[in-house]
Amino acid sequence: MKFEDLMVGQKASIQKTFTAADVTAFAGLSLDINPLHVSDEYAKNSIFGKRIVHGILTSGLISAVLANKLPGPGTIYLGQELRFVAPVYLGDDIKAEVEVAEIMEEKKIVKLNTTCYNQDGKTVIFGMATVKFNG
Amino acid sequence: MKFEDLMVGQKASIQKTFTAADVTAFAGLSLDINPLHVSDEYAKNSIFGKRIVHGILTSGLISAVLANKLPGPGTIYLGQELRFVAPVYLGDDIKAEVEVAEIMEEKKIVKLNTTCYNQDGKTVIFGMATVKFNG
Amino acid sequence: MKFEDLMVGQKASIQKTFTAADVTAFAGLSLDINPLHVSDEYAKNSIFGKRIVHGILTSGLISAVLANKLPGPGTIYLGQELRFVAPVYLGDDIKAEVEVAEIMEEKKIVKLNTTCYNQDGKTVIFGMATVKFNG
Amino acid sequence: MKFEDLMVGQKASIQKTFTAADVTAFAGLSLDINPLHVSDEYAKNSIFGKRIVHGILTSGLISAVLANKLPGPGTIYLGQELRFVAPVYLGDDIKAEVEVAEIMEEKKIVKLNTTCYNQDGKTVIFGMATVKFNG
Repeated sequence: MKFEDLMVGQKASIQKTFTAADVTAFAGLSLDINPLHVSDEYAKNSIFGKRIVHGILTSGLISAVLANKLPGPGTIYLGQELRFVAPVYLGDDIKAEVEVAEIMEEKKIVKLNTTCYNQDGKTVIFGMATVKFNG
Repeated sequence: MKFEDLMVGQKASIQKTFTAADVTAFAGLSLDINPLHVSDEYAKNSIFGKRIVHGILTSGLISAVLANKLPGPGTIYLGQELRFVAPVYLGDDIKAEVEVAEIMEEKKIVKLNTTCYNQDGKTVIFGMATVKFNG
Repeated sequence: MKFEDLMVGQKASIQKTFTAADVTAFAGLSLDINPLHVSDEYAKNSIFGKRIVHGILTSGLISAVLANKLPGPGTIYLGQELRFVAPVYLGDDIKAEVEVAEIMEEKKIVKLNTTCYNQDGKTVIFGMATVKFNG
Repeated sequence: MKFEDLMVGQKASIQKTFTAADVTAFAGLSLDINPLHVSDEYAKNSIFGKRIVHGILTSGLISAVLANKLPGPGTIYLGQELRFVAPVYLGDDIKAEVEVAEIMEEKKIVKLNTTCYNQDGKTVIFGMATVKFNG
């Protein structure tokens, strides 16, 4: 895609199931060993009732759809706002969707609404991405 | 730590070296296969000159210091604003530092300034975290 | 191998190179995020001068040679004493060697001397394993 | 924590659920491919009746609590004795607890009792750790 082809309202998405294996690996990569993520027993007694996936790991899907699809190759990530509005449980299948919200022609900067849904269509993360696009 | 012990100005940090292995693993977990992260050849010809670490992966260190240290166990992540202000290269040693900025007593919500520095003290990410803390 | 074929003095070994990727993955599996293992900067200023591999991860090679080779399939691990006598650095190639030290016929219990060497022949771990062998 | 703040009887713990994903990953890291760990069929016909987690992998939690909590950052692992007294099955939630048993002021060496329990409170591993602590 070229910068000129970008239009407000364009959408793209990517989806993935998050498992205990993802959480274990991300604990090692990030050093985030919150027992809400790594212990069934601890999580059972928390307000979530069972283990949840790291919010930042789930957010990686947003980074993926920006880099791979919209705008796609040539994307440089400048910023991201994230709100973690509902838990992602082990086994949840998450769809990250981005939608072009604003295009700044001169600086080649694009803002996109970014939302992650679970398999029931419930929003788990929302926010906004800012990217520079040298497409 | 208990909620009552939190004070504006408290700081904590965690640090880690990011390598090609981290980037490869995170590409698999997140599905973000931006060639800036995974291809030496592509990155060589980009404005960065060499491969860079995923911004969201680096941000995981912020999540780690919140969950492990300040506030620590009992932290529920509500939101995060991120600005990726300088590239993180393979081999960089990143320190994520958080500082309590605001404490909302009634809702047990805490806002923290979050900054990641590289080994030269240069800021690579900054932003703000919002957490609920049931300590 | 059958229990009857075991003799004091028998030896077997296995070897492997430990890299940053192993350390990252093991941090996630074990939750051990000691900065000596995960941060170049921190480790540079420690008595080791650079990052070291988790002692327990290296010890996994002992478990491997017991389970895979001597005594081999049918081995049940009852105990292990470990002394971490020298650091294992990223990139070191470690050979774990076990040697049958004592055979208790009635209980089918075997004690083995267990030693890990680096690529220079220096001992990095030594100790003793106790196994039950239903070969 | 500073060395001066250590006292006999102090305790800390960390907990984590071990899954098939952990076992698979650790088999790769350690090279320990004991069929008791990696084959449902083989394990079904063993004295355990189903697959068990590597003892050394479970022991990693002890290393984690020493490095992360007590004594915490500044810990150098000198030795560990381990007795594997009951099996850890896939899905078990293990709590590793350490308790300061002896403090050698001059050499800054600390001995700690180390015990791992499953979710039913049953001891699965016990032993003793020796660390040097430059806190």
